[in-house]
Amino acid sequence: MAKDKKMVEAITSMDEDFAQWYTDVVKKAELCDYSSVKGCMVIKPAGYAIWENIQQELDRRFKATGVQNVYMPMFIPEGLLQKEKDHVEGFAPEAAWVTHGGQEKLQERMCVRPTSETLFCDFYAKDIHSYRDLPRVYNQWCSVVRWEKTTRPFLRSREFLWQEGHTAHATAQDAEDRTIQMLNVYADFCEEVLAIPVIRGQKTDKEKFAGAEATYTIEALMHDGQALQSGTSHNFGDGFARAFGIQFADKDNVLKYVHQTSWGLSTRIIGALIMVHGDDNGLVLPPKIAPTQVIVIPIQQQKEGVLEKAAELKDRLSNFRVKVDDTDKSPGWKFSECEMRGIPLRVEIGPKDMEKEQAVLVRRDTHEKKIVALADLEKEVESLLETIQGDMLERARTHRDTHTSTAVTWEELVETVNTRAGFIKAMWCGDRACEDKIKEETGATSRCMPFAQEHLADTCVCCGRPAKKMVYWGRAY
Amino acid sequence: MAKDKKMVEAITSMDEDFAQWYTDVVKKAELCDYSSVKGCMVIKPAGYAIWENIQQELDRRFKATGVQNVYMPMFIPEGLLQKEKDHVEGFAPEAAWVTHGGQEKLQERMCVRPTSETLFCDFYAKDIHSYRDLPRVYNQWCSVVRWEKTTRPFLRSREFLWQEGHTAHATAQDAEDRTIQMLNVYADFCEEVLAIPVIRGQKTDKEKFAGAEATYTIEALMHDGQALQSGTSHNFGDGFARAFGIQFADKDNVLKYVHQTSWGLSTRIIGALIMVHGDDNGLVLPPKIAPTQVIVIPIQQQKEGVLEKAAELKDRLSNFRVKVDDTDKSPGWKFSECEMRGIPLRVEIGPKDMEKEQAVLVRRDTHEKKIVALADLEKEVESLLETIQGDMLERARTHRDTHTSTAVTWEELVETVNTRAGFIKAMWCGDRACEDKIKEETGATSRCMPFAQEHLADTCVCCGRPAKKMVYWGRAY
Repeated sequence: MAKDKKMVEAITSMDEDFAQWYTDVVKKAELCDYSSVKGCMVIKPAGYAIWENIQQELDRRFKATGVQNVYMPMFIPEGLLQKEKDHVEGFAPEAAWVTHGGQEKLQERMCVRPTSETLFCDFYAKDIHSYRDLPRVYNQWCSVVRWEKTTRPFLRSREFLWQEGHTAHATAQDAEDRTIQMLNVYADFCEEVLAIPVIRGQKTDKEKFAGAEATYTIEALMHDGQALQSGTSHNFGDGFARAFGIQFADKDNVLKYVHQTSWGLSTRIIGALIMVHGDDNGLVLPPKIAPTQVIVIPIQQQKEGVLEKAAELKDRLSNFRVKVDDTDKSPGWKFSECEMRGIPLRVEIGPKDMEKEQAVLVRRDTHEKKIVALADLEKEVESLLETIQGDMLERARTHRDTHTSTAVTWEELVETVNTRAGFIKAMWCGDRACEDKIKEETGATSRCMPFAQEHLADTCVCCGRPAKKMVYWGRAY
Repeated sequence: MAKDKKMVEAITSMDEDFAQWYTDVVKKAELCDYSSVKGCMVIKPAGYAIWENIQQELDRRFKATGVQNVYMPMFIPEGLLQKEKDHVEGFAPEAAWVTHGGQEKLQERMCVRPTSETLFCDFYAKDIHSYRDLPRVYNQWCSVVRWEKTTRPFLRSREFLWQEGHTAHATAQDAEDRTIQMLNVYADFCEEVLAIPVIRGQKTDKEKFAGAEATYTIEALMHDGQALQSGTSHNFGDGFARAFGIQFADKDNVLKYVHQTSWGLSTRIIGALIMVHGDDNGLVLPPKIAPTQVIVIPIQQQKEGVLEKAAELKDRLSNFRVKVDDTDKSPGWKFSECEMRGIPLRVEIGPKDMEKEQAVLVRRDTHEKKIVALADLEKEVESLLETIQGDMLERARTHRDTHTSTAVTWEELVETVNTRAGFIKAMWCGDRACEDKIKEETGATSRCMPFAQEHLADTCVCCGRPAKKMVYWGRAY
């Protein structure tokens, strides 16, 4: 038993040191590892399998709205990056530059894409001619590079995987509709599949994307009370179209600029999965995204018929993503291991269970045990997985709600930031100076102006002038 | 009708200029386009959808053999690339180099991965300790960069998409078995899904991968009689393991080097799909890989009930990847368009057909028409798609076989290369000098030493000394 506990003991407790707990889980659950390329990570099979499930589910939802996948080059010539002024200012400082190809120095250096607006615009400028060519609703799955100074697995790395959608529309309204539509795809996906409740809202001008007219965001709350921006959707208006000359002949035969959007969700969301659901035993994965949903663990497997029975149960559960652990490790070790990896449901089967024609089901999220008749196994597993999925969302929602405070005065705001982890709702005048002051003096940033506005007070929490918007504030990853 | 023909007339005939025909198909079928980044391409929705189907089917076959997907960084520090002598000589000359990250010059420049052996080795060296850690059977889907001087869509571009598998094993035999196993996965996939028959064999030392002990290949024959290397699988022995220090404690407690393999298949295969099956009307896709397998085209769609009927047929065919073309283009134009895009089967439905409770099915590959009773639609479509898939493979095989010659003497070899497009089987002494001479004087390269050896003669076709192997020779892409 001492050996069995070793794996678990190696994890720092969340309450003791959340950052260290996070690093421990990432490592012990074998999600990713550091590489020899500073700031870049190796995504290991257990981590990549989660990303594959995210891709599959999101891609299905994208395509249901008419999205088509494409692939653009990974390089952006410097001149192309510079075409939109705000955009280049936002991204050039953290670009990685290719200066030599083969034996030769390039005439113009190229950066590795930090995001691909400029490439899509360059393509659309040649490819869109008429209103019949619109809308264009393209997406690509790829990796991007941003030369960050400090990095953390999944949350901030110099290279990360994501999808980036880039669309072009005939009217401003169409672009706005698509921007909101994709934000809702992200939000629904997070809630329905990842069991992560999110706040949907708009970023302030200070926090919006470089080159965007409006940026919308979904914001999730981690277990330690810090926020994580989990997906963004941008409306560019016709700004990029003017910079790149993307025009189309409309039905009225007038040449017009297209209106564009872009939207992205990255491997960062795996960081959210870990920090929203994990506990001191490791990762806890919602059934809908878990690479392995059910693990069958034989007890006293050297006894006659036990391994065969475990294999039989695995076969019966083949509608689920199921594995059997028939290695020669002890049951206790196997329990710790599948808890660390976050497998939602464990099925224990031993000689006594076989005698009684039963199995023991253990939930990863609550550790609750349930003894079920073998005859009911498939039904019980299906129902328990559904329950776990629902309960995880509810628990995350409750945590989020009990870690959301309200501040009306400056003193309340400062005290709340300092004493209560979580979101703080407060009114704002709309002035950048107040936003800057709040960040400087409390460390909290504006997360978003939620779509669901509330009227908490008449005045800005910072300056006392008339308030324009309710804002979610918080410290963030 | 003149307008309907325009689209087709814009394609050069294969016999007139095969290279131009290829470029025309790529462009007219909207598979890919040139980008502002010289030598890099934009893969458009019709092209990317083919790649997605290839990925899905190959990935399924990989996983059935125990492959796990991972993701490694896209950058390789120069020092890491240099660790294996042959490997760096093979790849450094065409690497793209990153010298600056953000505002700073990097202390050590990094290349964008041309292939990831060095990254996997670096990771395995830290991650493999014991025989219990073996085998490691990892794969990644990603893009790679090779700074080629002359490029062609899909066939040779500076950036391309692929998968690269990298495995580590306890014994030389395990590595050899995996190398052959993955070559067979590629070959079976090409034949069963892409309807492309391939020759399975081993590369000569001259043609093998930089750093490999043995390279195995599948070679396909294009319509113009040129060969295309369509997938390769390499056995590294313990060469990389020694260079990178990848050791494990074996069951006998002795520290040993692992034995490694790698294997890759790229978007190049889309070039093969085009050049094996295409015709003067455009692309011809095998049903199993076609993004759209069946297209329903309403005839006289302004007549009452026709569009509704077309929609109904589409619904009935929802087990297939089916679309209906209800745009206001003329039927003739729609026919040309779906032929250009290579859709395997077209279903025509008009008022007369409705009266007779029938539909007209037209095969893309043979243009054969078949009138079927509406009651039998699903069954007929299923059976025709199967027939098309089988016929396409058989036609490609017949073409390959009728374009495979034999040469016993030097004169025969020279004459055959000059007069008959296709593979040439000839005996070889195993000497590099003969291989070089054949290439210099005929332009044909050794494609492979096939697993299925034949004894054509006792002596080398070039030097007349005793022959060791039968080799497939040919001009190649």
